[in-house]
Amino acid sequence: MEDRIFGTNPVFEALNSGREIDKIFILEGARHSRLGEIISLAKKRGIHYTNVSRKKLDELSDGGNHQGVLAFAAVHSYSEVEDILEAARKKGESPLILIAEGLKDPHNLGSIIRCANAAGAHGVIIPKNRSVGLNSTVAKVSAGAVEYTPVARVTNIASIIDKLKEQGLWIAGTALEESTLYTNADLTGALAIVIGSEGEGLSRLTREKCDFLVKIPMLGQAESLNASVAAGILLYESVRQRNLKSK
Amino acid sequence: MEDRIFGTNPVFEALNSGREIDKIFILEGARHSRLGEIISLAKKRGIHYTNVSRKKLDELSDGGNHQGVLAFAAVHSYSEVEDILEAARKKGESPLILIAEGLKDPHNLGSIIRCANAAGAHGVIIPKNRSVGLNSTVAKVSAGAVEYTPVARVTNIASIIDKLKEQGLWIAGTALEESTLYTNADLTGALAIVIGSEGEGLSRLTREKCDFLVKIPMLGQAESLNASVAAGILLYESVRQRNLKSK
Repeated sequence: MEDRIFGTNPVFEALNSGREIDKIFILEGARHSRLGEIISLAKKRGIHYTNVSRKKLDELSDGGNHQGVLAFAAVHSYSEVEDILEAARKKGESPLILIAEGLKDPHNLGSIIRCANAAGAHGVIIPKNRSVGLNSTVAKVSAGAVEYTPVARVTNIASIIDKLKEQGLWIAGTALEESTLYTNADLTGALAIVIGSEGEGLSRLTREKCDFLVKIPMLGQAESLNASVAAGILLYESVRQRNLKSK
Repeated sequence: MEDRIFGTNPVFEALNSGREIDKIFILEGARHSRLGEIISLAKKRGIHYTNVSRKKLDELSDGGNHQGVLAFAAVHSYSEVEDILEAARKKGESPLILIAEGLKDPHNLGSIIRCANAAGAHGVIIPKNRSVGLNSTVAKVSAGAVEYTPVARVTNIASIIDKLKEQGLWIAGTALEESTLYTNADLTGALAIVIGSEGEGLSRLTREKCDFLVKIPMLGQAESLNASVAAGILLYESVRQRNLKSK
């Protein structure tokens, strides 16, 4: 399934049909009326759009006739946070959720979804803006896990954290500085683990919203781990602790 | 630092200078004498070469004037297995080594090297053939870890396993079928963890050489984890057990 749609009519139709669009790129300075309609539809649906150069658009469309507009469509539909909580309830399990804050690399998001599925997590939450969406690379790298593990896309990570807290979840953030060694933290029970973006880690607001911060020890010169590796280590530590507790 | 060298003279010079070359691509059906010299030099140095179509060569050289030959050069020099063992001895630590059997994806190898460094492993071993080498993507994804964590490239993984066993290391392979839950295996002491290639897992011979096999539980529909995530989970379980033991 293709995830890049370009040309004024195809993009307009995709928007109008309600298809899930991650992002729209519009040629800077372009002025024709069809683009105006596309922009107002995008605004109405709360879809992020950005102005880019002709060179960038040519590149994104691989030299195709983009007519000044290109959209990234999701290859898989998003779920709601409520669906994720419901999935846990149905299984009679304490919710285990992975929140990935602002990943840029589709390999990381795909690998995280695969990993969340393997560890038996009930879903993944990503932000609407400043994050890669469910594009074809993510789907491919997830090795089919996008078909099974719900991914919710939210406008505001901080308010979702509040909502999850109301539902009784503990929120564990990842941090490099002074925080609890991840193996010493209690990762059993209803839990959401928040992973920061590559390079930048968690945003200040998100970090403040966390109930506690954990760190994975860095024993060499590397300052951090790849986001999906960190997610894997934390999710599987949670699995290990849950198994131990259920014995 | 560039990792693709093309054109008969540049490739010949790179080979002749002793620079580390991962692989050579030669235009199929090409017959000129300079290519013959390149092939015999490659054979002498034990460097793998393969015949490819003009289309493939044009693509690899990004349309450059390749004259029928292109080489992938390592962006970082390889170490010897002995260097890795020596690094552990110098630190007064039990050797912890990651063996990655036949990874194709540079993201995976780069992430594994980063992860090995972060977990305090003493080095990574990869096979000479049927594996991605230390190219520029691997170096980039490793986030600098290739500068610190030695990577050895060996002709035969099975005979290196024998050598490591003679040095007192235990060899833990990864498997999905009947094997010990990784958290129940003793991952302390002198240890090499063997990770299989994407999709195929460990080769039969390598699996037979392992002292024991461990599995990471798959609790969802995913059949396996990304190779670097699996490496991270196993390395950090080894770190956890070591910390526990030293208390």
